[in-house]
Amino acid sequence: MPLSSHREFDAALSFAATSTEHTMERLLPKGDEGEARVFEAMRYSSLNGGKRLRAFFVLASATLFKVGVTPALRTASAIEFVHAYSLIHDDLPAMDDDDLRRGKPSCHKQFDEATAILAGDALQALAFEVLAQEQTHGDPAVRTALIVELAHAAGAQGMVGGQMLDLLAEEQDAAEMSIGAITRLQRLKTGALISFSCTAGALLGKAAEQPRAALSAYAHDLGLAFQIVDDLLDVEGDAAQIGKTPGKDAAAGKATFVSILGLERARAQAGMLAEQAVAHLEPFGPAADLLRQAAHFVVSRKA
Amino acid sequence: MPLSSHREFDAALSFAATSTEHTMERLLPKGDEGEARVFEAMRYSSLNGGKRLRAFFVLASATLFKVGVTPALRTASAIEFVHAYSLIHDDLPAMDDDDLRRGKPSCHKQFDEATAILAGDALQALAFEVLAQEQTHGDPAVRTALIVELAHAAGAQGMVGGQMLDLLAEEQDAAEMSIGAITRLQRLKTGALISFSCTAGALLGKAAEQPRAALSAYAHDLGLAFQIVDDLLDVEGDAAQIGKTPGKDAAAGKATFVSILGLERARAQAGMLAEQAVAHLEPFGPAADLLRQAAHFVVSRKA
Repeated sequence: MPLSSHREFDAALSFAATSTEHTMERLLPKGDEGEARVFEAMRYSSLNGGKRLRAFFVLASATLFKVGVTPALRTASAIEFVHAYSLIHDDLPAMDDDDLRRGKPSCHKQFDEATAILAGDALQALAFEVLAQEQTHGDPAVRTALIVELAHAAGAQGMVGGQMLDLLAEEQDAAEMSIGAITRLQRLKTGALISFSCTAGALLGKAAEQPRAALSAYAHDLGLAFQIVDDLLDVEGDAAQIGKTPGKDAAAGKATFVSILGLERARAQAGMLAEQAVAHLEPFGPAADLLRQAAHFVVSRKA
Repeated sequence: MPLSSHREFDAALSFAATSTEHTMERLLPKGDEGEARVFEAMRYSSLNGGKRLRAFFVLASATLFKVGVTPALRTASAIEFVHAYSLIHDDLPAMDDDDLRRGKPSCHKQFDEATAILAGDALQALAFEVLAQEQTHGDPAVRTALIVELAHAAGAQGMVGGQMLDLLAEEQDAAEMSIGAITRLQRLKTGALISFSCTAGALLGKAAEQPRAALSAYAHDLGLAFQIVDDLLDVEGDAAQIGKTPGKDAAAGKATFVSILGLERARAQAGMLAEQAVAHLEPFGPAADLLRQAAHFVVSRKA
């Protein structure tokens, strides 16, 4: 990839992060009543954090269908609220028990467990409230379509189901996990929300079935590549860069793409999936260049 | 209240419970994949339980505006899913730490903490998914209105905010809690969702502002009466009847309406609020008789 593409992508990712964060800031509750402790925890865990790759996917896919910036930013914010809630709950002692998140103490370490559970719960409610509001799209049928898709992607048959599988996998002998089982787990746990991020623009733009399916296929492959790279970084990354405790999977004897495939094959597999993802973008022509660059970023990222 | 009214109300409450439970059963996910453990926990905690008073309020208010039974039952189910999720999370060790719920082991005792957290999360997502689906109302603008209201009632500025206040109150000296502070706490913690239950029928029936405001005022007073009776039952009830551990509030040195007002004044206050609630129903004439009977039930219930 030429250097200019790098710069274009970096600028787009940075714009997505900054503008979505700004929108999120305005959507989050604030106040000085007693319950403001939960507002603070929501802000602590959802602002100033992460690459905002999901927000980028919403904005980049929205561009393909000439969607306005406000609908795209509000939808991106809703997805980032759901993502933030899932990280708060995943970090809890009863779940993955992680003290570090995005280089800072995780929510229950900074506040306490009860506040963290409540902050996650409230962030989920906020995501749906934002999507349902008129400012997100003039056509309420578009808003309900977004909500059905997000709720499904986040719920028991999506992200939550994936996290359930992940917890159960820890009790299993890592050697017994098949590549099929771990692929399914990751498609649910992280793939469903990434997939929604990539197709939300099509919903906002009332796109036809075909372009939406192309984006869904792109997301399908890229989401898996993203997860394989996460597993690689867990082995090869360092805490300062990835902002969380590395080596946890191996220490927990957990099956990952790397433990099953080995480093080399896992890296090759991620590259192949990214190429496959890019191939699905063909019908969009040069308009989808940012999404192509995102695929390259996903497999070459160091954090 | 004459015996015939009792029977009419009992039948309506029982119909609401049975038919909502039937609808919930069909809406809950099922399957035999690995993640089915979370489906089971969702079913365990949301089916076969409770008086379904919130479902009754939806059905009774829907009747006032000639709303069809399917929209009413799906809306009632969504609210009961949110209510069930809140009980699962409230019972967690980090929150109220309750081992008993509706006479059965609470979700984290029957399954485990992680599964309970996830089941609650998934029930919340399911509630919004159900409301957003076409079968809930032919007009998507009605569906988004329901979602905005439910998300607000359930979120940081409603139920979650109230639970935050409740947890913080436990750290406070009970003697320092004013009746104003405890009223605000309860309006958020339980009042917001009850209020939404009572006004959902008006949204479904696209009612004018006035009848909706009357139902909101009814819910406002009745929700508080409901909570005062909860506090009375915590002192006077027994575990078998109320289906949870009694005397917890007093043991925790927690301020309640009873600890502040005393038994007699609390009981009188609940009765007065119920009468006040009924007064708001005047514009509806005899059509609101079931809601009047509900007010009587709320203050005379033994569980």
